[in-house]
Amino acid sequence: MRGLFIGRFQPLHNGHVSIIESALKEVDELVVGIGSAEASYTAKDPFTAGERMEMLMAAGKELGWGSRVISVPLRDVNRYSIWVRHVLSLVPEFDVVYSNNPLTRRLFEDEGFEVRSTPLIDRGALSGAKVRESMANGSEWKHLVPSSVAVLIAELEGDTRVGELFLRGGQG
Amino acid sequence: MRGLFIGRFQPLHNGHVSIIESALKEVDELVVGIGSAEASYTAKDPFTAGERMEMLMAAGKELGWGSRVISVPLRDVNRYSIWVRHVLSLVPEFDVVYSNNPLTRRLFEDEGFEVRSTPLIDRGALSGAKVRESMANGSEWKHLVPSSVAVLIAELEGDTRVGELFLRGGQG
Amino acid sequence: MRGLFIGRFQPLHNGHVSIIESALKEVDELVVGIGSAEASYTAKDPFTAGERMEMLMAAGKELGWGSRVISVPLRDVNRYSIWVRHVLSLVPEFDVVYSNNPLTRRLFEDEGFEVRSTPLIDRGALSGAKVRESMANGSEWKHLVPSSVAVLIAELEGDTRVGELFLRGGQG
Amino acid sequence: MRGLFIGRFQPLHNGHVSIIESALKEVDELVVGIGSAEASYTAKDPFTAGERMEMLMAAGKELGWGSRVISVPLRDVNRYSIWVRHVLSLVPEFDVVYSNNPLTRRLFEDEGFEVRSTPLIDRGALSGAKVRESMANGSEWKHLVPSSVAVLIAELEGDTRVGELFLRGGQG
Amino acid sequence: MRGLFIGRFQPLHNGHVSIIESALKEVDELVVGIGSAEASYTAKDPFTAGERMEMLMAAGKELGWGSRVISVPLRDVNRYSIWVRHVLSLVPEFDVVYSNNPLTRRLFEDEGFEVRSTPLIDRGALSGAKVRESMANGSEWKHLVPSSVAVLIAELEGDTRVGELFLRGGQG
Amino acid sequence: MRGLFIGRFQPLHNGHVSIIESALKEVDELVVGIGSAEASYTAKDPFTAGERMEMLMAAGKELGWGSRVISVPLRDVNRYSIWVRHVLSLVPEFDVVYSNNPLTRRLFEDEGFEVRSTPLIDRGALSGAKVRESMANGSEWKHLVPSSVAVLIAELEGDTRVGELFLRGGQG
Repeated sequence: MRGLFIGRFQPLHNGHVSIIESALKEVDELVVGIGSAEASYTAKDPFTAGERMEMLMAAGKELGWGSRVISVPLRDVNRYSIWVRHVLSLVPEFDVVYSNNPLTRRLFEDEGFEVRSTPLIDRGALSGAKVRESMANGSEWKHLVPSSVAVLIAELEGDTRVGELFLRGGQG
Repeated sequence: MRGLFIGRFQPLHNGHVSIIESALKEVDELVVGIGSAEASYTAKDPFTAGERMEMLMAAGKELGWGSRVISVPLRDVNRYSIWVRHVLSLVPEFDVVYSNNPLTRRLFEDEGFEVRSTPLIDRGALSGAKVRESMANGSEWKHLVPSSVAVLIAELEGDTRVGELFLRGGQG
Repeated sequence: MRGLFIGRFQPLHNGHVSIIESALKEVDELVVGIGSAEASYTAKDPFTAGERMEMLMAAGKELGWGSRVISVPLRDVNRYSIWVRHVLSLVPEFDVVYSNNPLTRRLFEDEGFEVRSTPLIDRGALSGAKVRESMANGSEWKHLVPSSVAVLIAELEGDTRVGELFLRGGQG
Repeated sequence: MRGLFIGRFQPLHNGHVSIIESALKEVDELVVGIGSAEASYTAKDPFTAGERMEMLMAAGKELGWGSRVISVPLRDVNRYSIWVRHVLSLVPEFDVVYSNNPLTRRLFEDEGFEVRSTPLIDRGALSGAKVRESMANGSEWKHLVPSSVAVLIAELEGDTRVGELFLRGGQG
Repeated sequence: MRGLFIGRFQPLHNGHVSIIESALKEVDELVVGIGSAEASYTAKDPFTAGERMEMLMAAGKELGWGSRVISVPLRDVNRYSIWVRHVLSLVPEFDVVYSNNPLTRRLFEDEGFEVRSTPLIDRGALSGAKVRESMANGSEWKHLVPSSVAVLIAELEGDTRVGELFLRGGQG
Repeated sequence: MRGLFIGRFQPLHNGHVSIIESALKEVDELVVGIGSAEASYTAKDPFTAGERMEMLMAAGKELGWGSRVISVPLRDVNRYSIWVRHVLSLVPEFDVVYSNNPLTRRLFEDEGFEVRSTPLIDRGALSGAKVRESMANGSEWKHLVPSSVAVLIAELEGDTRVGELFLRGGQG
C-alpha cells in the first residue's frame, strides 16, 4: 500500500519526521509531495525544491527510510477545482492520503480517496514558521530538525539566507 | 440595447438581484460577467463558476428573467491595461456598462463606453462577504439570497463548505 | 436532464446545428462549450468567443432553442490530465456528454460520465475548416451556416477578416 | 563600462534621479530596468511601463543624460531562482549592479556580478509610496519629481488617477 | 558524485536503461529528470509524469538501482535563457550532465557544468517514437522496454491508449 | 511625431535598417518593438532580447540614429484580441504605425491608429530567415547586416550558435 503526504518543508523539521514515520508504520511506501515547489528565496519559502528534496534524502539516510519515501516537487496551481488532478498527474499512484488540513481532506475525499489524520503537533512549539523565525532571530533551531538536515542547512548557509530574507522579502 | 454587469456572485444575493432587475428596466438584454471565474474553494471564493452560473439560472427561472440575462464566466487577468479588451473578447457586444466601482468606470469610459451607476446597497447589511460570514457563523443567511438560490446552495451543502473554508483557507 | 457538447464554432455551421438539435431531442438543456475561447484573429480561429456566443444566440432565436441552450466560453488548458476538471469547474452540472472524438470520449468516460455519439457529418463537405476556406476563396459559404449566422458574419465583415487572415496568419 | 539599476518608478522621483546620476559618474552607460512592467492602474502601480519609460525619457532630456540611460521594461516572474537569468536575457550586457536591497544584492552576487551600494535616501521623506500618497491626499508632490516629470504626469492627469485608485484598488 | 540525465520517457525504454546504467558506472547517484512533465494523453506524450515515475521505480526494482536513481518531474518552461536555472532549482545538486543533445550540452556548459556524452543508440531501431508507433500499429513493442515496464504499461492499458491517441491527438 | 515599428530582429539586418531609416524621415522618434522578446536559443529565435537590443544600439551608433530610436522588448501574448493593448501598455505613446503585415495593419487600424506601409524588401534575398540560413550553412551573411552588427554577432559567436541550433532546435 502507498500513502501520500504533502508539505512545504521550509525546512523539513521533526514534526514532518514524526508524520512520515507514523505513516510508514501503515504503508509500504510514502509519496512525499514538496508543495510550492517553484517558490524560493522568500521569507516564507527560503529553500528551493531541489534543496528540500536533499533534506528529505539526508533525513532518509539518517533515519533509514531507504527507498520507501518517494519525494516529488509539486508546483502550486492556485485553482482548487483542478488541484487534486494536478497532483494525481505528477505522482505515482497511491491509496491513502495523510492530512489534517480540512480543505485537503475534503478535496481528496470528494475524489473518493481515504484520508487519514496525522499525529497532532503543537504548531506553536514546532512548525516551519517557528524554525524560520528562530533562524532569523539567531535563536536555537538545530534541535527542531533531524541532525543531517541541520548539517545540510549549515552547508547551504541557510540560516544566514533566512535572516537576510526576513530583513526584506522583496525583489528590489 | 444590451448592458453589461460584472460581479463575483459568491454567492448571488439580493443586492445583485436588485442591480440586475434595475438594469433590465433599461436594456433589452443584460450580459452578466462572472468575475474571478477560475477561483473556488477559498474562503473568499467558495463556489465554482459553474455553480455560480447555476445560481443565475435558478434566479432567472424564479424571477422570470427568461433569456434576457446572459451569463459569461470571466477569468481574472490581473493586468488592468488589457482588462477591458479581455472582457470585450469574451462577451457578446453591449452598449452600456453598469458599475459603481471607480476603476471599472474609468477603464470602460476610457474605451468610450457609457457607464451607468447601480442602485446603492448598504454593503454592511448585504454583500457577498456578509453572506459568507453568516454561513460560516451559522447565522441566518437564506433571507439574503433569492429562495431558489438558497435551495441550490443547500443542495450543494454550500454553507458547510464555506464554514470549512473559513477554518482554513489554504491548500495544505 | 442536461447534456454537454463542446466545439470551437469557427464559425457555427449546419453540422453543429444538427448535433445540437439532435441532442435537444434527448435532453432538457444543452450546455454548449465554446472551445479555444481566447483564440481569435488567426486563420484557424478567426472569431472571438463573444462573437461565437452571438452566433449561438442568433441561431437559438432563429431556430427556437429558447433558453434550452446554455453557452459557456472555455479557454484551452493544454493539459489533458486536468482538462475534464477544468471544464467541470466552469459549466453548470450535466449528465451526459455528446462527442465523437475518441480522446474526449475516453477522458469523460474515465471520470464516470455517459458519453453519446453525435450524428455523423461528412467533414469534407461541411466543417469549420471548409467554411473558412470558402470564405477565404470567395466561394459560396452562406448555405453552410444558419441564415441568422450568415447575417451576423456579414455585419462583422467576417469573410473579409478570414480572407486577410489566410493571407498571413501571424502577428507581424 | 555599463551598470544596471532596477526600480519600479511609480513614479520616477528625485531619489531615483540621484541614484542614476551618481551611477553615471562611474559608468559610461546605465541600463535602467523598469520593474513590475505589466502592472498598472493599481494604487501601488498606477502608471504603465510605457508611461514610466516616458518619464525616464523626459528626465533624460531635462537633465542631459543623452543616450547614456537605456530603459528596459521588466515583467515580474515571481521565481527568485530564475529571476537574474530573466533579467539577463532582456537587457544589454552590463558589468556592475547598483542596489541596496539585500535580496537583489545576494542574487546578483551569487551569479558573480559586482554589486555597488546606492546613495542612501530617507524613504520616509522621499519614496514612490510617499509621492503617491501625496497625490492621493491632494498634498504637494511636484517638488519630489523632476519638473519635466511633473509636467508629464499633469498631462496624463496622473494625480487624479492615483486619487481614484486609492479610493479602491480593485477591479470591480 | 552525482549526475543528471533528462529524458521524456514516453515510455522508458532499453535505450534509456543503457544510458542510465552506463552513467551509474561513473557516478554514485543519478538524478533523472522527467521532461515535459505536465504533458500527457497526446500521441507524443501519452503517459503522465506520475506514470513515468512508476516506470522508473519498476525498472529500478527489476534492475537493482536501489536508491541510486532519483527521479524528478520537470515541466517545460519554453524559455531557454532560463531553462538551466529552472532545472537547478528543482533537482538535488549534481556534478556532471549526461547528454548528446547539442543545445542541452551548450546550455549546461555555458553555466560551467561538465557534460558527458551518452552511449550512441540507433534511434531508428530504438526510441520513444518507435515504441509508441509499434504500440499504435499493434506491432511487437515489449522487447524494447524492461519487462517490469512492459507489465506496468499492460496494467495501465497503455498500448490501447497510445493507439487511441494516434487516431486523433486533439481535444475535440 | 513618434512612430512604431515592430520586428523580431533575429538578427537585425539591412532590410530593417532601410525601414527604420525611411521612417526616421517622417517622424521625430521611432519606437522599435523587439517582438518575441522572451524567445532565444531556438533555430528561429537564436538571440535574446538583450542581444537584439545591443544590435539596435550598435547600429544606432554606426548610423547616427542618436536617441531617435527607442527600443522596447515585447513578449508574445498570443491573444490577438488584446495584443494592441499589450503593446500600448509597454511603449511610449506614438502617432503612426509602420507595417506591411495585413493583420498588424488591421489590428492597429481597428484601434484608430494611422498605419503606413514600409519599403518593399525582396524577402527571398533579404530576411531574418535568409540570414540565419546563411549562418547555418556557412555561407556569406555579413553583407546582409550593418557592419557593427556583424562585429557584435562575431563577438557573441552568434553564427556558431545558429549553426548548432539548426542541427536540432529542441531542448533535449
